[in-house]
Amino acid sequence: MKKRVLSGIQPSGKLHIGNYLGAIRQHIDSQNQADWDRYFFIANYHSLTSHPDPETLREWTLDVARTYLALGLDPEKSLLFMQTDVPEVTELAWILTCLAPMGLLQRCTSYKDKVARGIEANHGLFAYPVLQAADILIYDSHFVPVGSDQKQHIEVCRDLAQKFNIRYGETLVVPDGMIKDEVAVIPGIDGQKMSKSYQNTIDLFGTKKELKKQVMRIETDSKGLEEPKDPDTCNVFALYKFFANKEEIAEMAANYRAGGYGYGHAKLALLEKLNHFLEPHRERYNHLVKNEDEVLDVLRAGAKTARATAQETMRRVRAAVGFIG
Amino acid sequence: MKKRVLSGIQPSGKLHIGNYLGAIRQHIDSQNQADWDRYFFIANYHSLTSHPDPETLREWTLDVARTYLALGLDPEKSLLFMQTDVPEVTELAWILTCLAPMGLLQRCTSYKDKVARGIEANHGLFAYPVLQAADILIYDSHFVPVGSDQKQHIEVCRDLAQKFNIRYGETLVVPDGMIKDEVAVIPGIDGQKMSKSYQNTIDLFGTKKELKKQVMRIETDSKGLEEPKDPDTCNVFALYKFFANKEEIAEMAANYRAGGYGYGHAKLALLEKLNHFLEPHRERYNHLVKNEDEVLDVLRAGAKTARATAQETMRRVRAAVGFIG
Repeated sequence: MKKRVLSGIQPSGKLHIGNYLGAIRQHIDSQNQADWDRYFFIANYHSLTSHPDPETLREWTLDVARTYLALGLDPEKSLLFMQTDVPEVTELAWILTCLAPMGLLQRCTSYKDKVARGIEANHGLFAYPVLQAADILIYDSHFVPVGSDQKQHIEVCRDLAQKFNIRYGETLVVPDGMIKDEVAVIPGIDGQKMSKSYQNTIDLFGTKKELKKQVMRIETDSKGLEEPKDPDTCNVFALYKFFANKEEIAEMAANYRAGGYGYGHAKLALLEKLNHFLEPHRERYNHLVKNEDEVLDVLRAGAKTARATAQETMRRVRAAVGFIG
Repeated sequence: MKKRVLSGIQPSGKLHIGNYLGAIRQHIDSQNQADWDRYFFIANYHSLTSHPDPETLREWTLDVARTYLALGLDPEKSLLFMQTDVPEVTELAWILTCLAPMGLLQRCTSYKDKVARGIEANHGLFAYPVLQAADILIYDSHFVPVGSDQKQHIEVCRDLAQKFNIRYGETLVVPDGMIKDEVAVIPGIDGQKMSKSYQNTIDLFGTKKELKKQVMRIETDSKGLEEPKDPDTCNVFALYKFFANKEEIAEMAANYRAGGYGYGHAKLALLEKLNHFLEPHRERYNHLVKNEDEVLDVLRAGAKTARATAQETMRRVRAAVGFIG
């Protein structure tokens, strides 16, 4: 049997270049490893911890699907589905919750950090790692690629799976985290890490006009056109490097250093690269915006398979804990 | 439309005289109020907070059903079902959990009391009131009869329902608690409140031999047969009062005070009363022990109706929060 790899994507706004370079690209590339079975789910249950309004949650959820499909996710190779199409995961979360000592969750730094940053201390945030564990365990996932910030949650998941197996007999697959190579930090238009919460993103599928506007707003220093410039401290150059080839990067660096090359020139070069990269995908994206049923068909087909897997796990789990029928 | 009344019964061991006098009797009597719609569920999800082994949980769950049916619960008048046959309740619990400030749950004295008594602080105990709220809200319950110790949990439930309705529009019925008249404390065989956790119970459906043994073990003072005795400080008399009529009670009190009447006599009189009360029900109980399918048929029929109600609520809830499909 193939080993299963699971990734969750929380819908939290329009996806941007930082999301692409930091995760989506690897997700889509990974589907060509034919010896692994890939499950991608859109974590819309988890989104409720931040209280989006209903129309926004709906739109964000669909937009994750559209974006992945537009960028090349192939439903023949990978499952793509909504978390809420497999409500069994909340049942497993309750069962695991009864095995979770309070201390295990109280130690999770992700919750503590959020509260320290002034985010309302709601019970959904506190219980987040338990639902995440259920997501992983219900699909018998072997591997879960995560950033280093999620390492602790994988430990919680492994801990709960082991506790379950010790108490009720071998039932759940204990997964391994796969800590992803750290991707270089993707700067936003203000030079901080690109993030929805800093409002400094370059979106993947805004209109061409919006894309241009975001690129043109990238912050630079105030050196004049004629002055020589330092590419290594420039946000425009930093982004350009992700989309240009070696020769193009060297050429732009030389232009910076020579002087007579303004930030406006560099921004237009970056914009061209972005348009070149996005163009073939944008058409597909816009098609999917207009044809919501196509997106829903993919999600429903994914959910059908994923739910069958989940229901089989829950049959084992329910019998193991002593539920009847 | 009829108003709906909901009661949950957590399976936590063989049911005893204290359970009968404190709750079961009122539950069964209440089914004759034809203007109310009655849902009784066996709270086996909640039982996991105390980690029963699987066979025990199974047996306890069935035993609640057998006991209620043997004592006169009429499935034509009331629904009786297992909580785990309506897993949708765990989905609603997750949605409500995201609306629950940590402080709301931290203030719940029931959790604090349990931890203070040395019970392991597991997250299931902490999250208990949220699942309880989901149980109540998923069936559009109007009334929830509870003891005064559960008053705070009903407030949590009302609070979460109101929070939901404010954020997402009127969707959930905000229930009213019905604080039950305090039943006189039912003494166990050692004079403390009768409770499984004190191991001082007189079980409803043990064998006749077990029943006799439990009654004979009721603690009394060491007054001899001939001495006059005080009925008002005697555990045997206290229990006798629940099962005898006025004349019989007055007669036993007079016997106590006159002397020449031993505790053994009183115990035999109590035993006779208990046997008289239990005899007609015991036959039905033993029948149900041997015919598990009859019990399961009742539970499944109850679950079918309850689940339809729950699914209808979840359709409203899911649409309100912005889940797709």
